[in-house]
Amino acid sequence: MSCCHYHPTGDEALDSTFTVDSSRITFGRGCLAELGDRARALGMTRVALFSDAAVSTLPVFETAERSLRAAGVDVVIYTDVHIEPTDQSFKDATAYAAEARPDGYVSVGGGSVMDTAKAANLYVSHPADFLAYVNPPVGEGIPVPVPLQPHIACPTTSGTGSEVTGIAIFDLLSLEAKTGIASPALRPTEALVDPDCTDSLPARVVACSGLDVLSHALESYTAKPFVRRSATPRPSLRPMSQGANPWSDLGSLEALRLLGQYLQRAVNDAEDREAREQTMWAATLAGIAFGNAGVHIPHAMAYAVAGQVREFRPDGYPQSEPLVPHGMSVILNAPSVFRITAATSPRRHLEAARQLGAETDGAADEDAGEVLADALMGIMQEVGMPNGLSAVGYGESDCEKLAEGAWPQQRLLQNAPVETDKPMLARVFADALRYW
Amino acid sequence: MSCCHYHPTGDEALDSTFTVDSSRITFGRGCLAELGDRARALGMTRVALFSDAAVSTLPVFETAERSLRAAGVDVVIYTDVHIEPTDQSFKDATAYAAEARPDGYVSVGGGSVMDTAKAANLYVSHPADFLAYVNPPVGEGIPVPVPLQPHIACPTTSGTGSEVTGIAIFDLLSLEAKTGIASPALRPTEALVDPDCTDSLPARVVACSGLDVLSHALESYTAKPFVRRSATPRPSLRPMSQGANPWSDLGSLEALRLLGQYLQRAVNDAEDREAREQTMWAATLAGIAFGNAGVHIPHAMAYAVAGQVREFRPDGYPQSEPLVPHGMSVILNAPSVFRITAATSPRRHLEAARQLGAETDGAADEDAGEVLADALMGIMQEVGMPNGLSAVGYGESDCEKLAEGAWPQQRLLQNAPVETDKPMLARVFADALRYW
Repeated sequence: MSCCHYHPTGDEALDSTFTVDSSRITFGRGCLAELGDRARALGMTRVALFSDAAVSTLPVFETAERSLRAAGVDVVIYTDVHIEPTDQSFKDATAYAAEARPDGYVSVGGGSVMDTAKAANLYVSHPADFLAYVNPPVGEGIPVPVPLQPHIACPTTSGTGSEVTGIAIFDLLSLEAKTGIASPALRPTEALVDPDCTDSLPARVVACSGLDVLSHALESYTAKPFVRRSATPRPSLRPMSQGANPWSDLGSLEALRLLGQYLQRAVNDAEDREAREQTMWAATLAGIAFGNAGVHIPHAMAYAVAGQVREFRPDGYPQSEPLVPHGMSVILNAPSVFRITAATSPRRHLEAARQLGAETDGAADEDAGEVLADALMGIMQEVGMPNGLSAVGYGESDCEKLAEGAWPQQRLLQNAPVETDKPMLARVFADALRYW
Repeated sequence: MSCCHYHPTGDEALDSTFTVDSSRITFGRGCLAELGDRARALGMTRVALFSDAAVSTLPVFETAERSLRAAGVDVVIYTDVHIEPTDQSFKDATAYAAEARPDGYVSVGGGSVMDTAKAANLYVSHPADFLAYVNPPVGEGIPVPVPLQPHIACPTTSGTGSEVTGIAIFDLLSLEAKTGIASPALRPTEALVDPDCTDSLPARVVACSGLDVLSHALESYTAKPFVRRSATPRPSLRPMSQGANPWSDLGSLEALRLLGQYLQRAVNDAEDREAREQTMWAATLAGIAFGNAGVHIPHAMAYAVAGQVREFRPDGYPQSEPLVPHGMSVILNAPSVFRITAATSPRRHLEAARQLGAETDGAADEDAGEVLADALMGIMQEVGMPNGLSAVGYGESDCEKLAEGAWPQQRLLQNAPVETDKPMLARVFADALRYW
């Protein structure tokens, strides 16, 4: 299967090669206590320790800080990270770090914290106009210079995979749009992945972040194959969103298998240590996969779903403002999207469903989309997701505006295995309104 | 299965965490032409290009050199790499590089070439008494300081995996013993893996190197689980030979699956481009696996088999001196070893056999050793391996001396899932004399 899927086209304008990267990864319960020793081994003497207001009150943050200080590392603490970072919050963090002059960064938190540390490290190491490094067409997308200071990322959710990607996502306030900075140079030097951090997470947070992971894996596995992407003029600038490839397939399939087996258990029983561990390992594997392949339509649609929210306030999250959690905003689109993409690689869509636990023996190619959509809907129901976009406040009349909102995510849409346009996206949104 | 296999013991003297690393990897036909651009992107302006006398006459070497020069990189060439490097050949290469003062290294060749470039880079960057960094008990095993100069490794065989490991192997002439230097810092910065390099390899070379790869994968998958290894006082010094872990399992199983499907085709038909490509990808995956897990008894025994050879001269290799090619010296021990280790994890041994293509439905735990040994013997026969150690010149009376020869490889033997002693090794050698 994989050989045909990745058979070079012979068209010289297309690529025939892929490039993959990963961070050094340490995984295991209690491994946050290794932080100080690892910081010293990387030559850090003065660390900017990034977190957010909530995480910085938790025992895991204390563990991290204590380990750094016990190793004789000077520590300065920045906890003003904005959840859903903005250009302004990246700039604030940069100003702090420029003043503090650390020789290393440690981030303890979710994707917002890790991404903010990446941005501060970049703009302090190589000052530039803010939009210089930002993904085009919003920014100039100039290559990030090396080296940056070393960065140890310590995720506290089993979700974003940011600990192993070179991506930092933010809202550009002037355009009210999500965009980001993407470069292998932003990838943290090391990731310290300690499942102890997830023991205290509320069920709804485990569900939403776990479904984000599931979609990272599914989108990477079904992305446009790397041999169908245009070659870059300089091979060293081959994008990380290079499409599905044999390396990302490995991480994707194992993440899907683990989530099929453990996600429901991890959501429904905070005491199920094995399930929470395996879900966190799945998050890291899916991060490696999408950090080397890229996501596509469900994530592009998610930005519109989250951005245009009116009144929805989910359990387990702050009630101060309307919010569709990122993982929820992604997975609500997924069954609808994979019904459309299945025709491009039916065997892959069936294999993904099989890894998630679906019975696929004897399934025909033309059933692949429904089989995978059914598997996804089953998992969504098991972990308490709402029944489609209608359940978070959207209706038929919103689909055109949602499509408009997703359309600027061209970096993601061009990584899809099918061509997209706004009317097509509007139809996919409409199909996502109600699932069962 | 994996959860029980890796369940922490609760014994605080043992480790509960694993650490994994990889190089940046670029894979695809023709990717050697990316070398110059990648060297520049790493900041190289003056490259020491390492190769050996044979490879340096091949078109792939010319491709590499041309790419570097076209990118405006100054190139100095060292082709005096010794096949089966020695402490003296490492020192000679170091003396050359110290004089040439490169700011980057490129190696184009097999394991000997890549390992020699690693050693020269180390001793020029951080001069020390030669034995300082060498694995104990032969050397002092002091941690390798960082940073080294960047190194791009370009393998020309589908075998060693050295392009993604932090290991450099050599013969210490004064002791007539194989040993090495092992540190994450030795891992090449990038690997450029171009299957075009393997098109001209003789069938016997593809067979031997492919079986080395197969044993890398099998040994990593069956190594002592990381949770049964003693914890290191400093976690940042956790060894790369840390035992089997969930990360190395992924690479091991995929490498076994690919070899089961493609190795015979790659050996028997040099025109089978797909088979040679997939075999080379398997070699890189197995390199990632054993570079993060470690090998064990078959490799420890192989050093004795190669070292004590009397008259054997295989087809397809230079006939000037007796030689058991490395991959052959490894695989000849493998069926005998896995018969012994199967009892420690029968389901894993059966899974490995299944990936290689064996029928394992209904196999009982107590059959696991024979099922895997049978699968290995089948592949060995398909690709023309000799029938056990007797076919390369050893007899019953040699087994004790072979065991003596393997015994100093304690780094490997202690990574085995079973306890070893010399009489046990002698019995395993005896069982390896004749297979069919």
